[in-house]
Amino acid sequence: MAPSMRRFVVIGQQATASDDFFLDDLPGSSGRLDVLLRCVRAALLVSHGLRRDVVVYLVLLGGRQAPRVLRFDGALAKFVRPDERSLATLVKKVLAAAGDASTPAHGFVEVKAGIAISRGGLADVIADLGRATAYILDESGPDVRDSKELGCDDIAFFVGDHRGFDDATRARLAAIGARSIRVGPVSLHAEDAIAIVSNEIDRSAVPRASHA
Amino acid sequence: MAPSMRRFVVIGQQATASDDFFLDDLPGSSGRLDVLLRCVRAALLVSHGLRRDVVVYLVLLGGRQAPRVLRFDGALAKFVRPDERSLATLVKKVLAAAGDASTPAHGFVEVKAGIAISRGGLADVIADLGRATAYILDESGPDVRDSKELGCDDIAFFVGDHRGFDDATRARLAAIGARSIRVGPVSLHAEDAIAIVSNEIDRSAVPRASHA
Repeated sequence: MAPSMRRFVVIGQQATASDDFFLDDLPGSSGRLDVLLRCVRAALLVSHGLRRDVVVYLVLLGGRQAPRVLRFDGALAKFVRPDERSLATLVKKVLAAAGDASTPAHGFVEVKAGIAISRGGLADVIADLGRATAYILDESGPDVRDSKELGCDDIAFFVGDHRGFDDATRARLAAIGARSIRVGPVSLHAEDAIAIVSNEIDRSAVPRASHA
Repeated sequence: MAPSMRRFVVIGQQATASDDFFLDDLPGSSGRLDVLLRCVRAALLVSHGLRRDVVVYLVLLGGRQAPRVLRFDGALAKFVRPDERSLATLVKKVLAAAGDASTPAHGFVEVKAGIAISRGGLADVIADLGRATAYILDESGPDVRDSKELGCDDIAFFVGDHRGFDDATRARLAAIGARSIRVGPVSLHAEDAIAIVSNEIDRSAVPRASHA
């Protein structure tokens, strides 16, 4: 059996798809790309290492080059550091290096080790998910603790930015059968929701007795 | 009954207690203060608001003005933003404003709304905890899900930075009866551990039926 993969798709409704943001004013100049960068850290990084079974997609729907998607593959990525400025610098370089002329209209092209870009928007992400079971992290739906499927198979979580999801995105996700799931009674930052879901999968992936 | 409080005490073994770090190179110039700032966000901030029942202490043991402790009180704090650079700017201002001459040798002095400083180190934190039940977040000890006490009373979690705890700190915490508790099978960044513990307390604080 192939090892199961965890995928997180973070949708930035206004997060910039071009490199013309300022490292010194990330929240004000990037359409809140900072929210998405923190999600990359939460999904990919653990103490002193990367999660090799995780892929993160940042769907960038803001700015003059939108839509673009960045894909971080934990199995291949290098030099992913936890602090926001380092992550922003990395993303800036990737966005600058990937000229639209050299990027096909659909599909991912690797720009750096483990980091790829696409011009296809959410459609390209959905095509890339394969047979993953899709969930939407939001405040409705059953509790993540009641799901019996986590850790058993390929799984993909769609995560909103500070504004949540717009109606068109919700319709798109409903069309692929994505189901809502929630992480608890309080509405949290996206990165904290990712940390909690990851913990839930970590727990379901080890034999029950070892964390009793 | 007084509302229960959650306290997080993050100990930065080398995190600078003076304001002479660079916003453009936080990890390299501040003794990894960035790790502690991310803990402040995880502990205090939720979607569009602050957790009013949370207090965060940053124990700064690095640099020429160590030890100093910053205390963020969620009930009183204002203008706490989630991005790392804004948090670093806030902390820089607080560290610069609190001259050692104007700060007593022990006890907390408020510098900005909801943000206080002390020169007393870990001893001042312990004195400030009152009757809180103390835990150490690390990889030993029972699982946080098996604790029956969370959410019932005042509770304090001691959290290490990227290096964990040194022996002297462990001895100090053992002396106040702090018990180890872990958040799951994988060793995580401090801020993710805080998010997971906070979720556990959120769950225990609401009636069981409402998140079944």
